[in-house]
Amino acid sequence: MIILVMNAGSSSLKYQLYDMHDESVIAKGRVERIGLDSSIITHEPAGKPEVRHVSEILDHITGVKRVIELLTHPEYGVLKSMDEIKAVGHRVVHGGESFKHSTLVDANVKLEIRKLFDLAPLHNPPAMMGINAVETNMPDVPQTVVFDTAFHQTMPQETFLYPIPMVLYKRHKIRRYGFHGTSHDYVSRQAAEKLGKPLESLKMITCHIGNGASCTAILHGKSYDTSMGLTPLEGLMMGTRSGDLDPAIVPFTMNKEDLTLNEVNSMLNKHSGLQAISGLSSDMREITESMEEGNKQAKLAFDMYMHRVKKYIGAYAAAMNGVDALVFTAGVGENSVITRQTVCEGITFLGIELDRARNEERSKDARLISTDESRVAVLVVPTNEELLIARDTYHILMQQAEDRNIVEVEA
Amino acid sequence: MIILVMNAGSSSLKYQLYDMHDESVIAKGRVERIGLDSSIITHEPAGKPEVRHVSEILDHITGVKRVIELLTHPEYGVLKSMDEIKAVGHRVVHGGESFKHSTLVDANVKLEIRKLFDLAPLHNPPAMMGINAVETNMPDVPQTVVFDTAFHQTMPQETFLYPIPMVLYKRHKIRRYGFHGTSHDYVSRQAAEKLGKPLESLKMITCHIGNGASCTAILHGKSYDTSMGLTPLEGLMMGTRSGDLDPAIVPFTMNKEDLTLNEVNSMLNKHSGLQAISGLSSDMREITESMEEGNKQAKLAFDMYMHRVKKYIGAYAAAMNGVDALVFTAGVGENSVITRQTVCEGITFLGIELDRARNEERSKDARLISTDESRVAVLVVPTNEELLIARDTYHILMQQAEDRNIVEVEA
Repeated sequence: MIILVMNAGSSSLKYQLYDMHDESVIAKGRVERIGLDSSIITHEPAGKPEVRHVSEILDHITGVKRVIELLTHPEYGVLKSMDEIKAVGHRVVHGGESFKHSTLVDANVKLEIRKLFDLAPLHNPPAMMGINAVETNMPDVPQTVVFDTAFHQTMPQETFLYPIPMVLYKRHKIRRYGFHGTSHDYVSRQAAEKLGKPLESLKMITCHIGNGASCTAILHGKSYDTSMGLTPLEGLMMGTRSGDLDPAIVPFTMNKEDLTLNEVNSMLNKHSGLQAISGLSSDMREITESMEEGNKQAKLAFDMYMHRVKKYIGAYAAAMNGVDALVFTAGVGENSVITRQTVCEGITFLGIELDRARNEERSKDARLISTDESRVAVLVVPTNEELLIARDTYHILMQQAEDRNIVEVEA
Repeated sequence: MIILVMNAGSSSLKYQLYDMHDESVIAKGRVERIGLDSSIITHEPAGKPEVRHVSEILDHITGVKRVIELLTHPEYGVLKSMDEIKAVGHRVVHGGESFKHSTLVDANVKLEIRKLFDLAPLHNPPAMMGINAVETNMPDVPQTVVFDTAFHQTMPQETFLYPIPMVLYKRHKIRRYGFHGTSHDYVSRQAAEKLGKPLESLKMITCHIGNGASCTAILHGKSYDTSMGLTPLEGLMMGTRSGDLDPAIVPFTMNKEDLTLNEVNSMLNKHSGLQAISGLSSDMREITESMEEGNKQAKLAFDMYMHRVKKYIGAYAAAMNGVDALVFTAGVGENSVITRQTVCEGITFLGIELDRARNEERSKDARLISTDESRVAVLVVPTNEELLIARDTYHILMQQAEDRNIVEVEA
């Protein structure tokens, strides 16, 4: 079965085409600068050279049309016809409290996603544009939506509520949602498999640290607490996001610097984090390189980042009264040897014993980086959100087919 | 030596008179409703009945005058003359980065405190009124200032800076200061003494949890990190304060509810915390009573509070790579058996073994509540900020006298 995975941004479309027979990616690519001057499509068909087109793509509908043309192109394509695509799975950032699982798109689902525009004004509207664009181009193909928040819907009240007037939860649904759910879900399963233990038997902490970063306490397979909150601003220090702050800093700064609500949001989301402290970069690779060359601000940014990662690991170990496995994933988590080393060697009291040689190995597979004797297993698991979206889509379709068969048999 | 300790609020003055010979309190009391209708003075001389006066007290100068009259009153008094008071020690909330220790008041010190009005607009101006009122009434008596923030001035950059544009630190001194320093300092010393170990050898976490609440990581006797930040809003959930939040909740709520900066500050400081979730009370005693009667909102408020205390303990254990001693103090910490039990029994993975019988004992002395075998020692230490202010004042005076002697000998 061929499944197309879509991740639509306000001026972009990323796609991966999966053959679910062996979960291989048979093509992937991205459309950038939609609605702007000279849009660019980069298309990478498996086993063929990369294709780059510059043209005018005014909206997501045209974007999807171009993607289909490339996928079925006699020369650059990988499909004979569009009909080979059996489903399209979309990444949607915010599923609010309505969506606890991935689901098939129908009119109701679209309505619910629309209701959540308010909570994710930058993310949900483009996702909806992607869904509508696919619907226009491929009206008979089933679509599914996979939410960044769904995995965290298992959090209990005491971890998802904020200690602020309850009316704000009732009226505006202000609560912790958490994000990167697809990634935390995926890597926790991979880690349990790698350890050869049932996920349900484990207390696990997953650190998805990339440009965005979040940490999740996964208690017996379920998200129990996570560091991102109402928005992806809370929690760890990130590339350009502050993470946790004294909330009083927001009004204090607005007053002192005469900032509007948008300006303070932009400051905390786009001009903070590693970038703000180092004055150099939001990219951990550049931070660690500069630090090694003796740059003090880079060192400070690194130290602050590490301090905050260690604190979350400790906090979640306490929240679950212990931890069996610690997982690193995403850009920094998968690639920064020094980050993992600094974190792990700073919290040996938890029973973590890092194997430095294992930590320094590079691999695209899930792997153990703690010693065999380490009381807490530490793993690096490359995340693959697109694959999980493809899998969820596949399972939903299979389930649907099964349900139909049952109905047919019963009828 | 007789020392008067003062804690001035915007419409109140609290005082304690110490005989430093045996550190006994020979009188204490408070002036309330200064500048309002029918001010009240409550005066409690040791060994004599309590006195309550209602009169008009328009300002702090008159307030201090009345206090002196009571202290030297033939019937209610404990002193023959005002001259017996050798020094007055003031509690000042915010010492910014200028004050790393308690200090003698002079023109420069007053100027520095004035510069900090901006960072503590509710607290520093009344403290200054207290200082000026004492100066007017007792012009020849030396005064000292003891700061809530001073103890935390040992924090390193990576824990006191926020990951926001550095210009905010440079221009407005936005950073973590921490509060309750006098209390964290005092109880950590008492705990080390009780354990018979040098404070410098210990990794300690002190939980000052009262109506305000903060948690401090004390590494080898020095504050290494603390949960309150720029203001006393950050950190733990409190009676009416939210503590930690997704910072994005502030602009989101301001927008949704059309709140001003003052209104959102007031919401987070005065209408959040236990009060907001329980809908009942900001007082942990009432919360736990209602919870035991089956009130679900009270239970939820309690659970949220506990979750957050446990997370901070875990976070600070991680930040210090271990913990040797955990200390509870202040209203909730000293008196709520169930709070200490819930916290300690929820984080046994740290090597904490609570002794339930010891935990249930009531005493005014510092005491161990973990078992003798517990890897982490858990203590309850009644805090006494006034005594620490008196002691600091005493030491400053002694030091001053010594310095003068040296100068005289040298001359």
